[in-house]
Amino acid sequence: MTRPCDILIQAACIVTQDGLRTVVENGALAVADGMVLDVGPREAVAAAHAPARVLDLGDALVLPGLVNAHTHAAMTFLRGVADDLPLMEWLTQHIFPVEKHLTPDIVEAGALLGCAEMLRTGTTAFNDMYLIQDATYRAVDKAGMRCLGGEGIFGFPSPAYPDADAGLALVRQLHERWRHNPRIRQCVTPHAVYTTSPELLQRCQALAEELDLPLHIHLAETTTETAQCQQMFGQRPVPYCHGLGLLTPRATVAHAVDLTDDEIELLARTGAAVAHNPESNMKLASGAAPVVRMLQLGVPVGIGTDGAASNNSLNMFTEMTSCAMLHKLRCMDPTCAPAQAVLDMATRGGAAALHWPGLGQLAPGCPADLTALDLTAPNLQPMYNPVSHLVYAATGHEVRLTMVAGEVLYQDGRFTRFDYPVLVAQMRDVRRWVLDKLGR
Amino acid sequence: MTRPCDILIQAACIVTQDGLRTVVENGALAVADGMVLDVGPREAVAAAHAPARVLDLGDALVLPGLVNAHTHAAMTFLRGVADDLPLMEWLTQHIFPVEKHLTPDIVEAGALLGCAEMLRTGTTAFNDMYLIQDATYRAVDKAGMRCLGGEGIFGFPSPAYPDADAGLALVRQLHERWRHNPRIRQCVTPHAVYTTSPELLQRCQALAEELDLPLHIHLAETTTETAQCQQMFGQRPVPYCHGLGLLTPRATVAHAVDLTDDEIELLARTGAAVAHNPESNMKLASGAAPVVRMLQLGVPVGIGTDGAASNNSLNMFTEMTSCAMLHKLRCMDPTCAPAQAVLDMATRGGAAALHWPGLGQLAPGCPADLTALDLTAPNLQPMYNPVSHLVYAATGHEVRLTMVAGEVLYQDGRFTRFDYPVLVAQMRDVRRWVLDKLGR
Repeated sequence: MTRPCDILIQAACIVTQDGLRTVVENGALAVADGMVLDVGPREAVAAAHAPARVLDLGDALVLPGLVNAHTHAAMTFLRGVADDLPLMEWLTQHIFPVEKHLTPDIVEAGALLGCAEMLRTGTTAFNDMYLIQDATYRAVDKAGMRCLGGEGIFGFPSPAYPDADAGLALVRQLHERWRHNPRIRQCVTPHAVYTTSPELLQRCQALAEELDLPLHIHLAETTTETAQCQQMFGQRPVPYCHGLGLLTPRATVAHAVDLTDDEIELLARTGAAVAHNPESNMKLASGAAPVVRMLQLGVPVGIGTDGAASNNSLNMFTEMTSCAMLHKLRCMDPTCAPAQAVLDMATRGGAAALHWPGLGQLAPGCPADLTALDLTAPNLQPMYNPVSHLVYAATGHEVRLTMVAGEVLYQDGRFTRFDYPVLVAQMRDVRRWVLDKLGR
Repeated sequence: MTRPCDILIQAACIVTQDGLRTVVENGALAVADGMVLDVGPREAVAAAHAPARVLDLGDALVLPGLVNAHTHAAMTFLRGVADDLPLMEWLTQHIFPVEKHLTPDIVEAGALLGCAEMLRTGTTAFNDMYLIQDATYRAVDKAGMRCLGGEGIFGFPSPAYPDADAGLALVRQLHERWRHNPRIRQCVTPHAVYTTSPELLQRCQALAEELDLPLHIHLAETTTETAQCQQMFGQRPVPYCHGLGLLTPRATVAHAVDLTDDEIELLARTGAAVAHNPESNMKLASGAAPVVRMLQLGVPVGIGTDGAASNNSLNMFTEMTSCAMLHKLRCMDPTCAPAQAVLDMATRGGAAALHWPGLGQLAPGCPADLTALDLTAPNLQPMYNPVSHLVYAATGHEVRLTMVAGEVLYQDGRFTRFDYPVLVAQMRDVRRWVLDKLGR
């Protein structure tokens, strides 16, 4: 008896990231209705299914689409606009002067470019926080990716709203507008402790609970933030947020760099997830988050790229490499952050940080979100250990195909849902607009 | 009056890395007899030359081929064979048991794969130290790259020679055999202070002086090495080598991680160059080399990937990113290791570490060794600053073309001098051979 399915994918190797971390050599994966129906040895899976279409990827490695646990996709339009500067100079002289003129068109173009880069490098889902989020969702919808997103909430006007009341009202509108899109989920995203009042943070938490949404906040990114928080509110960021009721299993805190041991334990007890951004933290000299300790204590940790203005890419493969290297250095121990633990963070940990069960693994019943790497690339030859290759050797540019919900969104240089050369032409105009705003 | 030239290369942007770090928008570069004849604005250069062939690369960024200042190219055959282990366990249980069976064929195949990966990712020259180096040179000659190489000299038998006397004799033979190849240069390469006697190091230095060759040694890589050196010879590695006369302008020391301030100053006074290996040092938890201080004191510093068994790639673009991030973190200062300084290390610094003037820059009279990146890649869009993109956004896989001495060696997925699919098939056999030797 064979079961019908939409697609049968065949590949030399499938790294499932299922509960047992099964790796299948010479494998196949059956997709039906956008979900994984079956995955296993090629002959067995092929014999059990009658596919409408066979996608034989040959000497390829299939893995779950990577999950970017923290980014600002639209900020790709500012990629490399300024680097190597002290944080405040970078923000106040190069980022804010542009952002204050932000328009929905700029955000949509930047977010679509971000989606293009992520799909090109094997990421299928991301956790986004930015301004004029409705425009980002239009780009996500166009690209076909999955996104948990939130309008950044500040205690002052943003390009999207005149005051915090309007900001929270906007979150409700966005939730209402996009809730029926199966690939876009809403989140409440207060920006940070130093850009909001305690009352506003509590209102964000109340809204998240009322609408049953996750809450996502930048937290404990730098020692400067800690000092500011202590000065403004008499507490360090983590206990401060905990006191306001923000640290719950619905929370994802981005960065979590400047933590005491007690604060790591507190985080672990609350059930909050962490989005770890190794490259951004290094590039901005924020520090090295104590991720190994978090993992020991059972904190769900995903990996994020942060925005392209501070990284400068949205590439989860190179982010995995950086993550592994950072923690080996931090602990001065080469056994720290082994490849499997890092791949777990970039897949299953990302699912936890997006509060989106089923992402980050290829098991029956999970979304058919996956990517396939060309194993004949020189940097993936020879292959002794697929997981090692994914973390230490791949750059993401070996990706030949990326699929979300069983739909091919990128294959062999082509994006299926939008005209990439048109986007490149559009970015030329965006670039000129940015340079104009910066008076360059 | 127009001058004849072999090739006229046109591109949207040329990052010359000349003495003034000239960046030319909408540029052209004329090549004659394997050398750069002229580089500048497209109209001016085109008007002045009568090319036999025009290579219009369109929306591409041309830069000097990157120079890998320290690697073991042949070790790509062991890529990812074991990771995340303590150094000694990794070496004694996974690397040495294979290397003791090493054959010229394995070395040649591994080195050719290494060359393929380097050409694919924009590297045109490298500083190599390994075993059975003659086989590596055959691969280099086949691939068409430039290489400064040396047979690793140990105080005990190697797969290439029965004792140190024979090892030094082999260096003479290799020098004699390859000295007329314009792309291959010889180096004397004692492995490290803990694998050689003081007498052997002095004999290496004498041979380097006699043949007027550079000398390349692993030095001050770990605190373990320092402790060993102190125990064996009563001195830390740098003063020990200095006392033996090894630190001179002909020397390149690889790693230079565990250094005191005095030792950095000593290095600077000697004129020795340093090959800095950020990813290997992080992955093996060796530490962070004090590169910013070295640069301040005028030490010539190149960037190396080390071997693919400990990195796990020979990709100089991702190595540049890691280098910048590592030093910002080490100094807790985002202004440290700015993009231009890092690109300088990966190009001109590499030329210094290879003791090969003219490499790492595109100026009239320099070798026409260059690479071209596709600027329409999503991760390179938009572009505000080409140097920032090279260090922070590119992964090396945007490379469309790599050229050495005016000869195209890689273009758009194809290696011009060897049959890459045949090499991939060969690596399957090599992999089986390795697994057999490891009893897996």
